Amino acid sequence: MGEFDDATHFVVAGTANDGRLTYTGEIAPEWDIAGNANGGFLLAIAARAMADAVGRPPLSITAHYLAPGRPGPAEVLVDVVRAGRRMATAQAVVRGADGEIIRVLGTFAEQRPATEAEVPAVVHAAPPELPPAGECVRMQPPADNSGFGDRVAMWAHPDDAGFGVGRPSGTATIRGWFEFSDAQPIDAFGLLVAADAFAPVIFNVAGFPVSWAPTLELTVHVRSVPAPGPLRCRFSSRFMLNGMFEEDGELWDSTGTLVAQSRQLALIPR
Amino acid sequence: MGEFDDATHFVVAGTANDGRLTYTGEIAPEWDIAGNANGGFLLAIAARAMADAVGRPPLSITAHYLAPGRPGPAEVLVDVVRAGRRMATAQAVVRGADGEIIRVLGTFAEQRPATEAEVPAVVHAAPPELPPAGECVRMQPPADNSGFGDRVAMWAHPDDAGFGVGRPSGTATIRGWFEFSDAQPIDAFGLLVAADAFAPVIFNVAGFPVSWAPTLELTVHVRSVPAPGPLRCRFSSRFMLNGMFEEDGELWDSTGTLVAQSRQLALIPR
Repeated sequence: MGEFDDATHFVVAGTANDGRLTYTGEIAPEWDIAGNANGGFLLAIAARAMADAVGRPPLSITAHYLAPGRPGPAEVLVDVVRAGRRMATAQAVVRGADGEIIRVLGTFAEQRPATEAEVPAVVHAAPPELPPAGECVRMQPPADNSGFGDRVAMWAHPDDAGFGVGRPSGTATIRGWFEFSDAQPIDAFGLLVAADAFAPVIFNVAGFPVSWAPTLELTVHVRSVPAPGPLRCRFSSRFMLNGMFEEDGELWDSTGTLVAQSRQLALIPR
Repeated sequence: MGEFDDATHFVVAGTANDGRLTYTGEIAPEWDIAGNANGGFLLAIAARAMADAVGRPPLSITAHYLAPGRPGPAEVLVDVVRAGRRMATAQAVVRGADGEIIRVLGTFAEQRPATEAEVPAVVHAAPPELPPAGECVRMQPPADNSGFGDRVAMWAHPDDAGFGVGRPSGTATIRGWFEFSDAQPIDAFGLLVAADAFAPVIFNVAGFPVSWAPTLELTVHVRSVPAPGPLRCRFSSRFMLNGMFEEDGELWDSTGTLVAQSRQLALIPR
């Protein structure tokens, strides 16, 4: 079991009075950025408990972020909304010592392989062109006390990495490679972390402060089962207005297949 | 009050034992497509009850679709998750005579006008170029027994409307005008309907069947308060694979401001 599987695996502890399944565990301190757990990591904890409750992996999942996820004991309360033949819908509360951290709603299903589809795939897009990781720029969260940057390994396209040295590219895009540092294979849960791992794309727009951009909401669609190997990722924003921006993510596997799409709504820091 | 406001206004009926607010009303038969209520219309019913409970309009809202919304008595059970100074998060169940129809999770807040932002808006996109409505193609759901196409008025760009006469454009895009038939001003709730009103964009791809494409999940981000007048809309999909497609929407108001973004995950019909 990789360290990501280990850290996101909460154990079923029983059923609450209201019928919700309760999973308990610990928000590990090593997955933090400046003391708070990464948002995709928190979503993966919820998704793994929900997937356990419904017996299938996430397909479309949405989290609303309510409070920072500080390390320590936590629980996931899972409410199975509907379990059909193919799809199941569930919601979850992730709660730490200080109260609720995220609220989650998702639909779960096994991917139906393309070979079973009665119509051929149509894709109007291509994975980002990336130099080999060795020619890219290793990305690390800025704070010295962040474990997250050691748990995952991210390399940004050199054209998109200038913000780290005060030279934003001018385009709200970051392309790069993602994998776990221990090279654990990336499954549907790993995709949830990858979808929220890179720096906010607004760092590449001159005039926006380079500081934490709080996520209000994050939705991930899992579109295929990833083949082994690092992901090619592209994150971008087109609408930075009224104090907020959306960040769209595309995650592609080593065979050039789209494996996930993500979108989040986040606050532009002041 | 316009007919849309009237049809989506459920009345608070009390508080359930578990603390949830209960709103009751009727899924009006006039907003259907072949007997089932339009998905954006159902979301607007939920959003209006949730907004009433938290005292502010929707900002980011997600619905998972569980069962068709047939006309008749229904209730919305609203659970206020968190009510902060600016943002409030709530979830809701919409239930009809046959059981749950949709499960909804959203964050609610007043739009912060651009003039109050400390950083200027940056937009890397433009509204779709559309001929005047009179030179576009009026869109109507195909079934004779659909009221929805009379409640809203949609005109598609002539280049995107060929699927209606067996000539799909080959690109999974539909651009067009949207307004309510009674010209009621479009507010945050109206945007939710507009986000799910047009025909599925896969109708424009040869080889995909032109039949109902069930929505699994729909997320709408409200990005600005719409100015009066019809919306310019652009819907498109880039990834049609493994039996599913995403449909991305951009809704622009009459002043050329982006007022909402939407994304849904839907099944490709067989």
